[in-house]
Amino acid sequence: MRESALIGEIVRANAQLASCGGAHVVIPPGDDMAEVRLGGNRMLIATDQVVEGRHWTRGTPLAAVARKAMARNVSDVAAMAAVPSCAVAAVTLPAGLPDADVRALAEGLRAAAQEFRCPLVGGDIATHADAAAPLVVSVAITAEPGPSGRVVTRSGAKDGDLLCVTGTLGDGWRPDGGGRHLAIRPRIFEALELVARLGDRLHAMIDVSDGLATDAGHLADASRLSVEIDAARLPADPALPWQHVVGAGEEHELAFACTGQPPASVAGTPVTVVGRFVPRAEARCMVLVGGVRHDASNLGWEHGR
Amino acid sequence: MRESALIGEIVRANAQLASCGGAHVVIPPGDDMAEVRLGGNRMLIATDQVVEGRHWTRGTPLAAVARKAMARNVSDVAAMAAVPSCAVAAVTLPAGLPDADVRALAEGLRAAAQEFRCPLVGGDIATHADAAAPLVVSVAITAEPGPSGRVVTRSGAKDGDLLCVTGTLGDGWRPDGGGRHLAIRPRIFEALELVARLGDRLHAMIDVSDGLATDAGHLADASRLSVEIDAARLPADPALPWQHVVGAGEEHELAFACTGQPPASVAGTPVTVVGRFVPRAEARCMVLVGGVRHDASNLGWEHGR
Repeated sequence: MRESALIGEIVRANAQLASCGGAHVVIPPGDDMAEVRLGGNRMLIATDQVVEGRHWTRGTPLAAVARKAMARNVSDVAAMAAVPSCAVAAVTLPAGLPDADVRALAEGLRAAAQEFRCPLVGGDIATHADAAAPLVVSVAITAEPGPSGRVVTRSGAKDGDLLCVTGTLGDGWRPDGGGRHLAIRPRIFEALELVARLGDRLHAMIDVSDGLATDAGHLADASRLSVEIDAARLPADPALPWQHVVGAGEEHELAFACTGQPPASVAGTPVTVVGRFVPRAEARCMVLVGGVRHDASNLGWEHGR
Repeated sequence: MRESALIGEIVRANAQLASCGGAHVVIPPGDDMAEVRLGGNRMLIATDQVVEGRHWTRGTPLAAVARKAMARNVSDVAAMAAVPSCAVAAVTLPAGLPDADVRALAEGLRAAAQEFRCPLVGGDIATHADAAAPLVVSVAITAEPGPSGRVVTRSGAKDGDLLCVTGTLGDGWRPDGGGRHLAIRPRIFEALELVARLGDRLHAMIDVSDGLATDAGHLADASRLSVEIDAARLPADPALPWQHVVGAGEEHELAFACTGQPPASVAGTPVTVVGRFVPRAEARCMVLVGGVRHDASNLGWEHGR
């Protein structure tokens, strides 16, 4: 079974937990973050991890690994147009990792917390029995709605909405990754400006972590639509095959659905219209290339398989 | 370097982050949970993980592993005398784990969320490249203060306070563990009743995860005192050596400091006075055995080393 199908099944089972007691769940599992109500206040929460051998290779500076772990979570906050509150990190170390490496990892988390103005308030360190066992960094992050009070989910796109992306795509796929997967710039300010400028015209949003085809497909699925991407409009190096551009993961740009034209840029980052939402078709994501429609629903990056 | 020293160093570095922006940090890293202020509301947050080969061996039913991952976090909530709000889980799977096992793990998390009335609102699943790589389950949990509004930290014990524990000790150390490390009963109701009945006489609290000697030592350290445990008073099988009883981890009973006698039981769980806090001495934790004082500061379980 593909990971996404299994996760989908688990998420559907867990969504029922919204009524098991504890906090009142406003946005259940299945979006970039969940929203819960705590004593009248709204809190968003999510978790994401990076795993050695999957998200980086041994030898990568651990400060960069730590930053990546934090940045992926902050990118989930951006996807909801929210503002980071605080984070906690659980780190599983290979046996015998030198103390200097552990300190570099901790210092990387500290520096990322400062960069993203998201205090790291708790953590747990465990050590594998084996020196070859992969290092894992799991971060959980909480957030609050931005000044408008609005959070933007994956659902809500309408038939005819434009599909837009911030920044550029395709670097995540290159063999060297352009270092980009270690240099994620979460689009917090871009998301807040989109909410402020588009208002009710902004319908749905996600961050591109698994490739545009997969993530725009998530917007389409959550909104019971399909989405068509125009390959000629992709903001990418034209030398890259379109399959690579829409399949490149770890980009962490925003992809969003809006009605009417978006701003040309937000917070200094260009915005490009790359497609549109259409009535539900067999393929949830199609790419138009020279007038021919390709099913791109299964392109993209399945984390970890 | 012992793990606790390295973690202490990291925690001290991170405590400075309380002023890096984002949420206002009321209780910084270093206690069982951190407390932050979010738009006038108080939220507690913590994270804890379980690692295959460290906290359980391959072959243990994954539903029990999932429950343990949740229960350890809920026990941290109990240690603060708080009430669980919601949780998120990040799971790192060995390559090729059968879907049925993944479902058992997810179902175990779901069942634990229901048992502890703590909705599981988000998660992340990644897969190792290697089938031999250890499974890791990291949970982050948020909580709210109980009805009294009071949360109980590790600091605040006074010279002359009694050291008390709930339930019994020593099972965690047995080769078979009595299955106890997989059957943690977080003392949420016990903690709330202690706050209600002892009021200001309850000074400091922790859960016994690393052994009573280590965890009572944490209370002493945080309160700039030392602590003396009377071996004859330990609520344990008398056949167990005292070193085992005060060194047994994964018990998840409450250890607390109070002035005056505690109730004989709370929420149906017995309470035992096992020692007292004394002025700071060279040893942070001593055990009295037949009139002789033993330094027990270095007994106890260092997670993962």
